[in-house]
Amino acid sequence: REYRGAPTGTDRECRGWRQEAALRMLNNNLDPEVAENPEDLVVYGGTGRAARSWDAYDAICAELRDLGEEETLLVQSGKPVGRFETHERAPRVLIANSNLVGKWDDWEHFHELEAKGLIMYGQMTAGSWAYIGTQGIIQGTYETLAELSTQHYPDTEGLQGKIVVTGGLGGMGGAQPLAVTMNGGVCIAAEVDEARIDRRLETDYCQEKTDDLDAAIERAEAAAEAGEPYSVGVHVNAADMLEAMLDRGFVPDVVTDQTSAHDELEGYYPSGYTVPEADRLREDDPDEYVAESLATMERHVDAILEMQDAGAIAFEYGNNIRGQVADHCDHDAAFDYPGFVPAYIRPLFCRGKGPFRWVALSGEPADIHRTDEAVKALFPEKEHLHRWIDLAQERVAFQGLPSRVCWLGYQSGDDPDGLTERARFALRINDLVADGEIAAPIVVTRDHLDAGSVASPNRETEAMQDGSDAVADWPILNALLNCAAGADIVSVHDGGGVGIGNAIHANNHVVLDGSDLAAEKARRVFTADPGMGVVRHADAGYEAAIEEASESGVHVPMEDRE
Amino acid sequence: REYRGAPTGTDRECRGWRQEAALRMLNNNLDPEVAENPEDLVVYGGTGRAARSWDAYDAICAELRDLGEEETLLVQSGKPVGRFETHERAPRVLIANSNLVGKWDDWEHFHELEAKGLIMYGQMTAGSWAYIGTQGIIQGTYETLAELSTQHYPDTEGLQGKIVVTGGLGGMGGAQPLAVTMNGGVCIAAEVDEARIDRRLETDYCQEKTDDLDAAIERAEAAAEAGEPYSVGVHVNAADMLEAMLDRGFVPDVVTDQTSAHDELEGYYPSGYTVPEADRLREDDPDEYVAESLATMERHVDAILEMQDAGAIAFEYGNNIRGQVADHCDHDAAFDYPGFVPAYIRPLFCRGKGPFRWVALSGEPADIHRTDEAVKALFPEKEHLHRWIDLAQERVAFQGLPSRVCWLGYQSGDDPDGLTERARFALRINDLVADGEIAAPIVVTRDHLDAGSVASPNRETEAMQDGSDAVADWPILNALLNCAAGADIVSVHDGGGVGIGNAIHANNHVVLDGSDLAAEKARRVFTADPGMGVVRHADAGYEAAIEEASESGVHVPMEDRE
Ligand SMILES: NC(=O)c1ccc[n+]([C@@H]2O[C@H](COP(=O)([O-])OP(=O)(O)OC[C@H]3O[C@@H](n4cnc5c(N)ncnc54)[C@H](O)[C@@H]3O)[C@@H](O)[C@H]2O)c1
Ligand SMILES: NC(=O)c1ccc[n+]([C@@H]2O[C@H](COP(=O)([O-])OP(=O)(O)OC[C@H]3O[C@@H](n4cnc5c(N)ncnc54)[C@H](O)[C@@H]3O)[C@@H](O)[C@H]2O)c1
Repeated sequence: REYRGAPTGTDRECRGWRQEAALRMLNNNLDPEVAENPEDLVVYGGTGRAARSWDAYDAICAELRDLGEEETLLVQSGKPVGRFETHERAPRVLIANSNLVGKWDDWEHFHELEAKGLIMYGQMTAGSWAYIGTQGIIQGTYETLAELSTQHYPDTEGLQGKIVVTGGLGGMGGAQPLAVTMNGGVCIAAEVDEARIDRRLETDYCQEKTDDLDAAIERAEAAAEAGEPYSVGVHVNAADMLEAMLDRGFVPDVVTDQTSAHDELEGYYPSGYTVPEADRLREDDPDEYVAESLATMERHVDAILEMQDAGAIAFEYGNNIRGQVADHCDHDAAFDYPGFVPAYIRPLFCRGKGPFRWVALSGEPADIHRTDEAVKALFPEKEHLHRWIDLAQERVAFQGLPSRVCWLGYQSGDDPDGLTERARFALRINDLVADGEIAAPIVVTRDHLDAGSVASPNRETEAMQDGSDAVADWPILNALLNCAAGADIVSVHDGGGVGIGNAIHANNHVVLDGSDLAAEKARRVFTADPGMGVVRHADAGYEAAIEEASESGVHVPMEDRE
Repeated sequence: REYRGAPTGTDRECRGWRQEAALRMLNNNLDPEVAENPEDLVVYGGTGRAARSWDAYDAICAELRDLGEEETLLVQSGKPVGRFETHERAPRVLIANSNLVGKWDDWEHFHELEAKGLIMYGQMTAGSWAYIGTQGIIQGTYETLAELSTQHYPDTEGLQGKIVVTGGLGGMGGAQPLAVTMNGGVCIAAEVDEARIDRRLETDYCQEKTDDLDAAIERAEAAAEAGEPYSVGVHVNAADMLEAMLDRGFVPDVVTDQTSAHDELEGYYPSGYTVPEADRLREDDPDEYVAESLATMERHVDAILEMQDAGAIAFEYGNNIRGQVADHCDHDAAFDYPGFVPAYIRPLFCRGKGPFRWVALSGEPADIHRTDEAVKALFPEKEHLHRWIDLAQERVAFQGLPSRVCWLGYQSGDDPDGLTERARFALRINDLVADGEIAAPIVVTRDHLDAGSVASPNRETEAMQDGSDAVADWPILNALLNCAAGADIVSVHDGGGVGIGNAIHANNHVVLDGSDLAAEKARRVFTADPGMGVVRHADAGYEAAIEEASESGVHVPMEDRE
């Protein structure tokens, strides 16, 4: 099956822009430039799919072309299962992917059901039609490092003069060197697979490669000294590299990792093998592979902990390497360094800040450039955001439909009309669409990883201060509230980056077509959705969230009544 | 804390009837006439609560009194956590209770979180403010037995001349004798606790009691011979009674059970002990109690299976006695007789039929009597429904706010306007409210056990013919769709009758205040909600559902495209 990506332009195939947006976003997810493996409907993240089968895909497209302005399509794990009359303020598409009753909520039952054709892995933005390629990831990494620098180096310009050591230059991890240099810092990244380093060099995500660790450290230290951004990929196993650094007495400022440690057989490479050697071992003796792989991971985590003891800032970057070592190596100390969410992202979540993203349905880069201008003009005081937008324009290539990510929050306190940051931006864009300054409607959506939309005890809700990590009422309320507030697509998924049974999360899309209705929806959704981030964290007792609620007038019933 | 039940009358405390309805329904759930233990906020079903604490209850009431017509209140496990601007077609209250991320979705984690005050057990209708006391249960039992008689005795008038043997005359089980006699049959029910039998005699749910099994069988056979309804409670352990019947060569027509076998320590009584003896054993040696209790359950199930082999119709009535014996006694044959849903309820679910219920907010019995008339007039051909309404009027006492249950479905095929049964009824009631024939608005709601609203592999979705028992996308889509269609309260719960991690289900309320808006909401919700029952069962391949879809014009995307 040959696959071409999203339709573009200002003419539509569907009966309204809300339906057309769903059609284009689904097809954008499957654009060969965007998706990992579009022939199999796989968008990213293992087997994260956009539709259950090509038949289901065809039926979804046909339903969307036919869908009225007062109708809602139901999609169950990538298959269209119903269509009912609702009203124009209701969503046009409702999606539920990969959800299982708790006792059966594991990979074993999932795979049984998948084999019968009854379920699909929706990942996060794959099954909700909101994936936009690696540009989404870069920005998260950029933002995480920016928050790290704000917390730990308040007097420094970003990461200027700081050395970040990491591992893994794959699909997501490859964004690390660029995110570090965008923050002004220096990055040394271990990667066993030379071809992956070459790919990052080609796209300018990484500046140099070497086999010589001493040379890498020397150049890194020189760049740091000079306050220059610099990145180098070292062709070596990450665990070996960290140990070699410790042997030399070299301690970086920051240490993390993005090898695919979440998968001990097909993701992580054991020490002592080249890539082809390891691939052969995996074929010949998978048990031995796993044993070697986990043994290397244990050394890897120990080296991170030793660097932390020596003064480095250490964090896990969502690849579950701590969980792997804790579960399989019976290693109690594995969780002695934090995950990235509690360490750097939660302070943003407390303010309702999260990865807001938007997509130009026209297919025109100029439309996104117009939004770039608009967001900068709207928030003249946000230097950090300006810097991101400039860097993104310069260094991040569009994939599929042109799009942009930036983190915006609630913070309605400063706005004369009491609008949230997200609402202000969306309303401005809607005006630009109405005025014809933007060629076709813009879809605004976000990652499932957001302030009030996810329960995931090993990642987004790790170590909540009240212990409410596993409470899944919140993402369900988030989805219901997005629906009530008038989002155009609403979805609820089980699984995602951390796997079946480990998370529940929700997403939304709002189509800005320049109409008053779109303005009304945008104002409500982009108040309620980040607002849930504020109340969820206020409920857990976070001071920053309670402060945000009081500054921005977010009502927290039990708090306000005390 | 003294607790009085729902406010009544035609004046309201809240800013609109939607909010007032939520306030009255919450308080009705906690009416001492309705709730098992209102002081502890426990409504029914173990610890099924309506609010997390009295503070949370007070805050909910205050929020509801203050809630605007374009606002939505969020309730997370019985605690109000947020309030956001939405619009008048959106729900006024969104509720999520007891939901946990899959890997943590069990009693152990639930109890930890409950101890920290972070979660509440919502049961089914307790936490969604839709419980109406035992009248709800009677009707389910009546309907189940009616379907059994239709399937197995097509030439008989109901259960006339048939003997049903069962156990357990507790809160729910006590409805069994009445439900059998309402169907024209004869019931012999074993109950170890004499006080429980006496309670059923006082309220006329059961006609006689005895210690003498031979006498009971003799009278039962005489009544059956004469075609007379008759019920008798036998003061004996149910397992002992079934074995004694087999010893005598007596095989009933139907055998089932509603002892609290789901709880081996605090629900089920072991053979060989009086109630006080057993209660002492439980105190002194709980392990021994459990061992004896499970041993009796195993004999109990064996006796049911032996009766089935001898020609009786056997079914489990949702108390998980098969699961208990299969799990704890390593008894493979335990599941050799069916659960009540696959056996008798699923054919109704395929047609979108489920337990529809409505409540008179005025508190006036006359309002319900007017609705009784209306439903009979609307469906003159439904003899079975007429019989139920007449019997209910005569024999089922109101508890708390007057209310009624009856099973209605989709079946829009016969209606000139293409309206579903549920929508036709709701619109008629809305007119009666508008015309002042009914004093105050009526709230229409339903059980969580309904056609398209639940995933529960040991009960409502047991043995689905495609194997999709555990897929929880369906109840989540159901909740989202109810929200999109304009229901006034929407809720999603984990747990319920089968316990944490064993089920996910959704509920809705629509307030019929006589307005055009209420008519619009009622038409949409009572089309979409039972419609999901039809599409869910059509998707699983049930012929009756596919037939219903085609007769009633329910769109099933993949089916209609073939
Ligand atoms: N923080 C987040 O928000 C976030 C988001 C998505 C994914 N992740 C996690 O990050 C990890 C990486 O994701 P990806 O998409 O880049 O995966 P990928 O499989 O595309 O890349 C992993 C890379 O690591 C290299 N590698 C493996 N073991 C190594 C070792 N011992 N030493 C050096 N190099 C090694 C591989 O050669 C590969 O290039 C995954 O575990 C993923 O789940 C985190
Ligand atoms: N089918 C359904 O839709 C449905 C609905 C709700 C509950 N249930 C299940 O039905 C069961 C009964 O519910 P309930 O509310 O009546 O419970 P309950 O605890 O109020 O009553 C159970 C009764 O069984 C009696 N009993 C226990 N062991 C006995 C034995 N061995 N022999 C004779 N009598 C015995 C007890 O004395 C008590 O009166 C529960 O397991 C419940 O989960 C089914």
